[in-house]
Amino acid sequence: MAGKLKTAVLGATGYSGLELTQLLSAHPRLEKPLLMRRNGDGGSADLADVFPALTGNGGYPLHPLSWKTLKQQGVKLLFLATPHDVSRSLAPEAIAQGLRVIDLSGAWRLKREENRAVCGFDDADAVAAEELSAKAVYGMTELNGEDIAGAQLVANPGCYATSIILALAPLLKAGCLDRKHGIVSDSKSGVSGAGKEATARTHFVSVADNLSAYSVFNHRHVGEIVEQLNLKTEEFTFTPHLLPIPRGILSTIYVRLSAKMTALEVEGCFKTFYSGKRWVRIFATPKLPESQFCLHTNYCDVGFCLAEDGQRLVLISCIDNLVKGAAGQAVQNMNLMYEFGESEGLR
Amino acid sequence: MAGKLKTAVLGATGYSGLELTQLLSAHPRLEKPLLMRRNGDGGSADLADVFPALTGNGGYPLHPLSWKTLKQQGVKLLFLATPHDVSRSLAPEAIAQGLRVIDLSGAWRLKREENRAVCGFDDADAVAAEELSAKAVYGMTELNGEDIAGAQLVANPGCYATSIILALAPLLKAGCLDRKHGIVSDSKSGVSGAGKEATARTHFVSVADNLSAYSVFNHRHVGEIVEQLNLKTEEFTFTPHLLPIPRGILSTIYVRLSAKMTALEVEGCFKTFYSGKRWVRIFATPKLPESQFCLHTNYCDVGFCLAEDGQRLVLISCIDNLVKGAAGQAVQNMNLMYEFGESEGLR
Amino acid sequence: MAGKLKTAVLGATGYSGLELTQLLSAHPRLEKPLLMRRNGDGGSADLADVFPALTGNGGYPLHPLSWKTLKQQGVKLLFLATPHDVSRSLAPEAIAQGLRVIDLSGAWRLKREENRAVCGFDDADAVAAEELSAKAVYGMTELNGEDIAGAQLVANPGCYATSIILALAPLLKAGCLDRKHGIVSDSKSGVSGAGKEATARTHFVSVADNLSAYSVFNHRHVGEIVEQLNLKTEEFTFTPHLLPIPRGILSTIYVRLSAKMTALEVEGCFKTFYSGKRWVRIFATPKLPESQFCLHTNYCDVGFCLAEDGQRLVLISCIDNLVKGAAGQAVQNMNLMYEFGESEGLR
Amino acid sequence: MAGKLKTAVLGATGYSGLELTQLLSAHPRLEKPLLMRRNGDGGSADLADVFPALTGNGGYPLHPLSWKTLKQQGVKLLFLATPHDVSRSLAPEAIAQGLRVIDLSGAWRLKREENRAVCGFDDADAVAAEELSAKAVYGMTELNGEDIAGAQLVANPGCYATSIILALAPLLKAGCLDRKHGIVSDSKSGVSGAGKEATARTHFVSVADNLSAYSVFNHRHVGEIVEQLNLKTEEFTFTPHLLPIPRGILSTIYVRLSAKMTALEVEGCFKTFYSGKRWVRIFATPKLPESQFCLHTNYCDVGFCLAEDGQRLVLISCIDNLVKGAAGQAVQNMNLMYEFGESEGLR
Repeated sequence: MAGKLKTAVLGATGYSGLELTQLLSAHPRLEKPLLMRRNGDGGSADLADVFPALTGNGGYPLHPLSWKTLKQQGVKLLFLATPHDVSRSLAPEAIAQGLRVIDLSGAWRLKREENRAVCGFDDADAVAAEELSAKAVYGMTELNGEDIAGAQLVANPGCYATSIILALAPLLKAGCLDRKHGIVSDSKSGVSGAGKEATARTHFVSVADNLSAYSVFNHRHVGEIVEQLNLKTEEFTFTPHLLPIPRGILSTIYVRLSAKMTALEVEGCFKTFYSGKRWVRIFATPKLPESQFCLHTNYCDVGFCLAEDGQRLVLISCIDNLVKGAAGQAVQNMNLMYEFGESEGLR
Repeated sequence: MAGKLKTAVLGATGYSGLELTQLLSAHPRLEKPLLMRRNGDGGSADLADVFPALTGNGGYPLHPLSWKTLKQQGVKLLFLATPHDVSRSLAPEAIAQGLRVIDLSGAWRLKREENRAVCGFDDADAVAAEELSAKAVYGMTELNGEDIAGAQLVANPGCYATSIILALAPLLKAGCLDRKHGIVSDSKSGVSGAGKEATARTHFVSVADNLSAYSVFNHRHVGEIVEQLNLKTEEFTFTPHLLPIPRGILSTIYVRLSAKMTALEVEGCFKTFYSGKRWVRIFATPKLPESQFCLHTNYCDVGFCLAEDGQRLVLISCIDNLVKGAAGQAVQNMNLMYEFGESEGLR
Repeated sequence: MAGKLKTAVLGATGYSGLELTQLLSAHPRLEKPLLMRRNGDGGSADLADVFPALTGNGGYPLHPLSWKTLKQQGVKLLFLATPHDVSRSLAPEAIAQGLRVIDLSGAWRLKREENRAVCGFDDADAVAAEELSAKAVYGMTELNGEDIAGAQLVANPGCYATSIILALAPLLKAGCLDRKHGIVSDSKSGVSGAGKEATARTHFVSVADNLSAYSVFNHRHVGEIVEQLNLKTEEFTFTPHLLPIPRGILSTIYVRLSAKMTALEVEGCFKTFYSGKRWVRIFATPKLPESQFCLHTNYCDVGFCLAEDGQRLVLISCIDNLVKGAAGQAVQNMNLMYEFGESEGLR
Repeated sequence: MAGKLKTAVLGATGYSGLELTQLLSAHPRLEKPLLMRRNGDGGSADLADVFPALTGNGGYPLHPLSWKTLKQQGVKLLFLATPHDVSRSLAPEAIAQGLRVIDLSGAWRLKREENRAVCGFDDADAVAAEELSAKAVYGMTELNGEDIAGAQLVANPGCYATSIILALAPLLKAGCLDRKHGIVSDSKSGVSGAGKEATARTHFVSVADNLSAYSVFNHRHVGEIVEQLNLKTEEFTFTPHLLPIPRGILSTIYVRLSAKMTALEVEGCFKTFYSGKRWVRIFATPKLPESQFCLHTNYCDVGFCLAEDGQRLVLISCIDNLVKGAAGQAVQNMNLMYEFGESEGLR
C-alpha cells in the first residue's frame, strides 16, 4: 500500500457521492477511500445499506465525521459531496487541518461578487471565507489545469455548466462568436441531477412520460457559466429541462458567428483547442452526439450543425451528469493535483 | 339539471381521486361533483393547483369537508378516495347523515375476522364498525351486482385484487381448479398504484430501469382475494412487483386444472361466465392481453395459455389500476346503485 | 342516423390514423367512419388485428380503397392519414369524385414555390396539382377558421408546426418581436411522431435513456412554419429532438421583443389573441406547461418567462402530437367545415 | 504484449457482441480482440460506425471473416456472438482450424435429443455435428467449472436460463424441492434481450408504458433449463415477459420444499453452495435483489421469501442479461479455460 494516496468522501450517500466512491475504490493510485457521514445523516453503518447494489464487495463502512479520524487514517485529500451550505462551512476547517479539498457543491465556484451575493451564504467568518474563496480554483480540468495542479481547494464545476462551458470555450476564446447577439443554451438533464431527495418533482409519475422546463433565467449555474466564459448576464439565456431518464445531459446551444465560417473551420477550432485532451470528443458533421453515447463515461461529447448562411451555429454537448458532470471530473481534478495520469481511474 | 345525481368526492388530490373526478365530471347522469378536502390537506383552493392538467376547464374548487355543506348541496352519494384509516372513521358518520358511500380504500373490504384483524383498525365504536362492516358490499360489479344495487356502503375492490379475482372466478366457480395444488399470482403494477406520496421507493431514479418485488406473502390485498374466492390463505401465493411505468397492472396467474381441458373449453368457461358483461374482454388463444391495451379504459382483459398436458394453465389478466382498479369500477358501482346504464360515463 | 355525417379514413393503421379513428367513432355528429386501406397495406381485415387495444368494440373492418364503395356508403368527407406522396396522388382524384378532404400529411401545406420544391413531388399532372395546391387551406383552426369553413381540401398542420405557430402568432401579429434578431425553437417530441415503422431509430434500446437532436436546419416542418408566420428562412432556427416518451411535444422558443414589455403585457397579448378559443390554454407566469399536462387532450398549452431586461422572452408550448398535432386538429377542422360545435368529439 | 492471449469476436455488431468487445478490450490478460464480420453484415469498417458510443478510443476495425486472417493474427480463442444457425455451421470449422470456441448462441447448449430436435438444425454433416455436440460443455461457470477448463467448445448459457438455473441449483442438488409439485419461473427481461433487430415488438411505442408475456410454454430456453437441472418438461412452467427497460432480468420462481425449512436453513443452503463463488450474491431475508442492483456487473443476485408454512418458497434472481447473461459469463468461461483469475476483466 506504500505510496498510495489516502482520500475521504463526505456525502457518499448521495448520487454523486456514490459515483465518486465507486470511482475512487477502483482507482489504482488510491487506498480504499474513507467514507464519512455527518451526524444528521442517520445511522447507516455501511453504504451498502443505502445502495444495495454495493452488496458483497467487502463493505463500505460509514464513519461519523471527525477531524481526528481523518488525521489518524492519514487522509490527505477530502472530497465534499455535500449540500452547498455544508461545504461552505466545512471547507475552511478542513483546509486549516491541512487537508486539500475537492468540493462538488456550488459553494466555492463563484468569484464575482454579484454572483456570490445570490447564493447568500451566511459565513460565520466572512473575511476568512472571502479569502478562501479568492484562492479556490474552478476545477474545469480542460481549461484550468495549471491552477488546479497546485490548488488547496478545488471547486468542482456544476453539471450543466460543464456541458455548456466545454462547448463554448473554444469558439469564445478564438473570438469567433458574436456575443452581442446573445447565446442560448437549451439544456436537458436526467433526474439524478435533481438529487436523491424524494419530492413531488422527482416522483416517478411526475417525471415519466413528461418533459418540463424549470428555473428559466434564474438557475444557479448561470453564475459560474458567465463568470468562466467572461460573459455579461444578459448575453446568456439558459433554460434547463427535466428529462424522463435517470442520468445524462444534452445541451443544445445556439450562437451566431461574428464572421462566416465553414463546418471544417468550426471543427478545426474545436480540435485544436482540445488537442491532447482525452475526455472531450469532437463529432464531425453530420454526426451528432446523443446523451446515451457518453453514459457511465467521463467523456464530454461535442458536435455541431452550421446553417447554410455560415453564421447560425447549433452546438450539441453531452455528458453523464454524475461522471464528467460531477464524480469523474473530481477524479480528473485529483489526478492533476497529484500528478497521476489524466485517465487513471476513469472510463 | 333536474334529475341529475349530486355526488361528492373526498380525496380528489390523490391519483385515484383525480381519475374519479374526471370520470364523474364527464358522466352524463351527474351534476358536477362537489370536491372536498380534509383540514390537514393543505390550503389548495382548486384541484387544478395540484394537477395543472386540469387548468382551464372552469375550475375544480376544493371545499373543506363539512356535513352541512354536503346536505345543502343536495349530495346523495359520497366517494371516499382517502387512506384506509380515514375511510374507517368517516364512513359510519356519512351513513348516519343519510349518504350512500363508495369507499375506494381497503377499510371495509374484509368480512373474515382473521383478515380484518390484520388491518388493526382502532375503531372508536367497535360494535358499530362491526355492524357496518357486515353490511358493506364488496363492489366487484361483475360478481356482486345484485347486492351492490341496494348497498348503503360499497367497498371498492383493490387494484391487484380486481385483476386476480376476475381472472380466477370463472374457473373456480365452475369447479375446474385443483385448489390443493395452490394458485400463484405473479402481479406487476405501475407506480401510481403506490400512491402520490414522494418516497425513496417512488423516486424516479429508484423505479426507472428497474423491477422489484415487494410484500411477498404479506400484501394487504391477499385478504380480500382469498375471502372473495373462498380460498385458504395457504392455497394462494401472491408476489406484487413495481414496474417502471406510470399505470397498468398485469397479473400472470398459475393454476392447475383438476381435470384435462382443451383451450376451447377454457375459453368457453370464461365467455359463458362473462356473457353480457361489457367490461371484461376475453382474448382467445394464442392472443394475449398486454398491460397497454386497456390503459385509460375500464376493461379487464383476460387471456390464457394451456400447456400440452391440458392441466397447467397460465392466465394473463390486465387492468388500468386507476380505472378498472379504482375510479372506473367505482363509477360502475354507482351505475348499479342508481340504475344507470352499465357503461355510462366510462370508456 | 339521419342527419349524421358519413366519413372515411384512409391510413387508420398508423398512429395518427388510429387516434383519428377513435375520435371519429366517438363523435356525436358522425356515423361510424368507414376505414379503408391501400392494396399494399397487407391483408388485415380489422383494425383490432393491428391494434389489439380496440378488441371487443364491435369491430373496425378495413375495406380496400374504392371510390365506388365510398360513394355507395354515402361518404362526404375523406381523411387521408397517409404518407406524403400517397396524399399527393390521391387528393385530386378524391376531390374530382366530389369528396371534401382533410389531409394529415405534408403534401398540401406549402404554397411558396421555394418550399414546395424541396418536397420534390412527382405530380403526374403538375398543372392540376398546382391549381389544387393554390386552393388548399392550411388547417390551423385558431388562425384560418373562415377559410377552413369553406374549404374543399384542408392541409392539416404538422405537429411541431402546430406547437410553434400557435406560440408565435400572437406576438408576431401584434408586431412585438424583433424578427431580425432571429427566432429559435428548440423542440422535443415523443416517438410516435416518428411513425410506426420499426427502424434502428425507433428501437426501444436506441430511444430509452437517451435524448438526440436530428434534422437540424433541415426539418420538413420549417417550410410551413416560415410560410404561415411570414418569416424569412434565415430568421428561424429549428432543432427537433427525440424524447424517450411515447407521445407529447414541448417547444422551447427563444425570441427578443422589439420593445420592453411586462409579463402582464405578454400574457395580455396571448389572452386577447386567443379569446374565445377553447383549445389554447395560456399559463400565467410563473406557471409553465409541461408536456404531460395536455396528453390525450386537444389542448395547446402556452406559457412564458420574461427576462429582467424585459426583452428576452422564452416561450414554452406543449401539445399531444397525435391529438392537437394531428387527429384532434383534424376533427377541429371538420367541426368548422360542417358547422359542428368547436369542441364536439374532442376532450 | 508477449504472453497475452489473442482472441477474436464474430458478431460484435449485436448487443452481446458489443458488451463482449468492451469487456475483452479492457481485459488485462488479452491483446486487443480481432473483430470480424460476416459477408452479409454490411460494409461498416469500424464498430464505432454502428455504436457511436465507441468513438475516439482508437478504433474498432471490423474485418471480413477469414480463417487465414485468424491464423495470421495468432488468434487462439474465437467468440461467436452470432445467430443460432450461424454458430451451428461455423463452430465445427473453427475447431477444425485448431481454435477454441465460446459460442454465445443456443446452437450447442442441448444434449438431450428431444430438446435438440426442436431446434431443427439442418446440419450439413449431421454425424460430425452430433459428435461435436456431445463434446460441447455447457458454460455455467459456477456449476461446470472443471469441464469448462478443458473444453474445446463452450456453449455459453442463455440469459433467462442463467438467472433460473443459478437460483434453483442449490436447492435441487440438496434434494430440498418437491419436484412433483412443479416449479414456476415468472421471468421478466429488458428489451436488449430481444436483440438489435428493429421489429414491431421492439418499437419504443410498443414497449414503453407496457408489459407483455410471450412464448408461454414454448420458449427456447426451457430445453437447457430442464436439461441442466435434470427436470421433466412438465415439472417446469416458464413465462417470459418483456419489460420497458433496456437491460436486466428478474426471475420470480415459485417452488415447494419437500420438507419444512427455516429461512436461515434456506439461506445456509445457498451460501454453502456458492461458497467461494464471487459472482453470486445471496440476499438474506428480508432483503431482496432488484434488477437494477446488478446492472452493468457480472453478478447474479439471489434472494428469497419463505411462507409461514415453511414450505412455499419464492426465489428472486436478477442478472444483467448482457453481462452475466451473455458477455460477462463468456469472459468467466475464458478465465477458466486459460487459468486467469476468476474476476479478471469483470466488474
